[in-house]
Amino acid sequence: MAKPTPLSGFPELLPEQRFVEQQVVDTLRRTFELYGYAGIETRAVEPLDQLLRKGDTSKEVYVLRRLHEESAEGHSGIGLHFDLTVPFARYVLENAGKLEFPFRRYQIQKAWRGERPQEGRYREFTQADIDVIGRDELPFHHDVEVTRVMVDALNRLDFLPAFRLQVNNRKLIQGFYAGLGVTDTDEAMRIVDKLDKLPVEKVRAMLVAEAGVAETTADRVLSLATIRATDDSFIAAVRALGVEHPLLDEGLAELGQLVRACADLVSDRVQVVADLSIARGLDYYTGTVFETRLDGYESLGSICSGGRYDALASDGRTTYPGVGISLGVSRVIVPLMAHTGLTAGRKVPSAVVVAVVAEESRPESEAVAAALRARDIPCEVAPSAQKFGKQIRYAERRGIPYVWFPDQAQVKDIRSGEQLAADPASWTPPEADLRPRVVSTSSTNQAQETNQ
Amino acid sequence: MAKPTPLSGFPELLPEQRFVEQQVVDTLRRTFELYGYAGIETRAVEPLDQLLRKGDTSKEVYVLRRLHEESAEGHSGIGLHFDLTVPFARYVLENAGKLEFPFRRYQIQKAWRGERPQEGRYREFTQADIDVIGRDELPFHHDVEVTRVMVDALNRLDFLPAFRLQVNNRKLIQGFYAGLGVTDTDEAMRIVDKLDKLPVEKVRAMLVAEAGVAETTADRVLSLATIRATDDSFIAAVRALGVEHPLLDEGLAELGQLVRACADLVSDRVQVVADLSIARGLDYYTGTVFETRLDGYESLGSICSGGRYDALASDGRTTYPGVGISLGVSRVIVPLMAHTGLTAGRKVPSAVVVAVVAEESRPESEAVAAALRARDIPCEVAPSAQKFGKQIRYAERRGIPYVWFPDQAQVKDIRSGEQLAADPASWTPPEADLRPRVVSTSSTNQAQETNQ
Repeated sequence: MAKPTPLSGFPELLPEQRFVEQQVVDTLRRTFELYGYAGIETRAVEPLDQLLRKGDTSKEVYVLRRLHEESAEGHSGIGLHFDLTVPFARYVLENAGKLEFPFRRYQIQKAWRGERPQEGRYREFTQADIDVIGRDELPFHHDVEVTRVMVDALNRLDFLPAFRLQVNNRKLIQGFYAGLGVTDTDEAMRIVDKLDKLPVEKVRAMLVAEAGVAETTADRVLSLATIRATDDSFIAAVRALGVEHPLLDEGLAELGQLVRACADLVSDRVQVVADLSIARGLDYYTGTVFETRLDGYESLGSICSGGRYDALASDGRTTYPGVGISLGVSRVIVPLMAHTGLTAGRKVPSAVVVAVVAEESRPESEAVAAALRARDIPCEVAPSAQKFGKQIRYAERRGIPYVWFPDQAQVKDIRSGEQLAADPASWTPPEADLRPRVVSTSSTNQAQETNQ
Repeated sequence: MAKPTPLSGFPELLPEQRFVEQQVVDTLRRTFELYGYAGIETRAVEPLDQLLRKGDTSKEVYVLRRLHEESAEGHSGIGLHFDLTVPFARYVLENAGKLEFPFRRYQIQKAWRGERPQEGRYREFTQADIDVIGRDELPFHHDVEVTRVMVDALNRLDFLPAFRLQVNNRKLIQGFYAGLGVTDTDEAMRIVDKLDKLPVEKVRAMLVAEAGVAETTADRVLSLATIRATDDSFIAAVRALGVEHPLLDEGLAELGQLVRACADLVSDRVQVVADLSIARGLDYYTGTVFETRLDGYESLGSICSGGRYDALASDGRTTYPGVGISLGVSRVIVPLMAHTGLTAGRKVPSAVVVAVVAEESRPESEAVAAALRARDIPCEVAPSAQKFGKQIRYAERRGIPYVWFPDQAQVKDIRSGEQLAADPASWTPPEADLRPRVVSTSSTNQAQETNQ
């Protein structure tokens, strides 16, 4: 077999990078569980008619077929899920009788989209979703809750750059448009959502030509989208535009409540901004909407997005409203690894290599290793009874900090050269050496080390 | 949307069952890391020509195609991996220059096979693999190592029934057959491997008809397969059959070494048996082979299998020998859940519900929750300011043991009814209440509770 080459859009990590990803996943999971979110996994596949339910084929679904099966025609087959929301909505309906509502769940899984690969956008990627879903009703305080949980989780990833959570509310936008007399509010919202990609003049022209609004109305629609505030002063700014509508009042009240409830999260790493340009395009949100941008990585777009659905799922009799946020784990860490050299401080979990004096005495080395493992110290026994210098280099190449010499009952810190008498039944390395650390190896970040 | 129905072969778990699966995965991971195994993940897809490399289409590969793509013809497309060995071999070749050998890795991931679903065999399933891979050479002591690591890991899953690790050696079988003058040793081995499915007379007839061996030779081939021993007494039993061959000597020595090195693992839960009928059928092993059976769940077949490959991977210049074992995580836990009601003691991670006295005082309840979380105590705030009786029933339905009353600065153990004054800055539940426990709920196992 010739040397294989990577598949574009399917990133894979070296062991020391995978360690970082695993740490991220562990940190997210621990945080979500602290808030009472239960972990679930859904199968990788869904019926095609579910995946294509909204006629939305832009997600580039991967269709599956068994090798010996006739090619599946139409929408009767199965495909890989392109997000975790569609499978979660289906899971809730399927298991509604066995779940307790409000149901808090987190889900950290891969998803697949056949779109053109680029930095931060892959054909296979890991997402971490949290949602709270109610039966018939779901109080607004859960919108505040999911925001706070995700900010807490992001805050614990201390290798992340500073980030900016941008919040808005669909009721506010739709109420404002309705108060202005815009008839196709969805179309107007979809056009305004292009402001981060198109010049404002182009968007204005589209509003007139495609959403059928008057030029002066288009100007007020665009004025709304320019409002930004880190506190609830956006309310006065919107009021100053002189539009009235009950749905607008509701949206302003909700967004104001959210921004005030998140004021204490603001720090030198975290900004929370009411940004009235955020609409989440084609997605079917009905209230709060979120996006998140990383300082210095704006080209990645939103790394963490979500919002409120009045009907995340419905079986005709019962409606399940939900609010949730989804973090693009691969979208964040794969580019960070490329740009900052984010990796683990060693290539293996082992904190210690137990040297082997001679093949005949390997059982003595194994006994030392067993004693260390009994106290949760990860270690390995040297693969062969080479000269000690070679066994030390074996440890060095992997970044393992300690080598144990069973014949001398001594352990050596190979970084400092310090060698001490030690008993495998009681010796413990410093906490910082027990597991690999997460480090950034790029020249600009050489000094930056994080323990998490 | 009507109530969806499950997809056959794609099992999904309720949150309380997923908790058990997650505990299993965590335990495996922790064990593998204690022995220095680094975790990796490979992409879900491989090029079809790799998946079908050995002309082996029996794995029922799922072929992928993008919705808008012309149907992929021939073997030029991609498919979902059907195990973790093929992707690992490819990963090693692709990254050989960046890995340190011997390379120990674990990999816990899903795999997919389009075969007919039955208990323990699913179309989507999780496997946990460990392998050690060398460059050009890999000493035999790694065969002992992977055996011991997997037995240690299985031992830590204390809800598992007793299990029997069956070991054999391909060199022993092939050397014995060669010493008997059997020409097509692979064909003979494949036929003998059917002994657990076909009657011995049928296997004997196939040996004569299909492998072309004489009747007396067939009898000696079958005699070998009847040998079983929990120590190295199998060596004398093989010698008594009077066959001589250098490869047989090598196989006997290796298998003897393995059985002796595992003698101390034997307990009332663990048997290690040299079973000379084990051959692992079509797989391309070249030395040690393993299978594992669970007492009372023999119909599941081997839940944990593997062995030694002299060439797990090769790029023409360099050969990478490996030895590894693969545990069928889904194959074990999905049937155990069905038969013993294996589940978590509560439906959510929360140990505490903080009651809400009135919606206006929700921030006070949130403050209590924040203080508990700051000390790693998972908790949630009640969703609404109902009467306390209803808030207690909210906790009960989820199996949450404690309810906190912020107005009284008291916490109630709702199982015993005991209610005590408590400070959220210092109160801690007993360790056993901090996380959900793994329990068996079936009538025959009601008393059985495990903490792990």
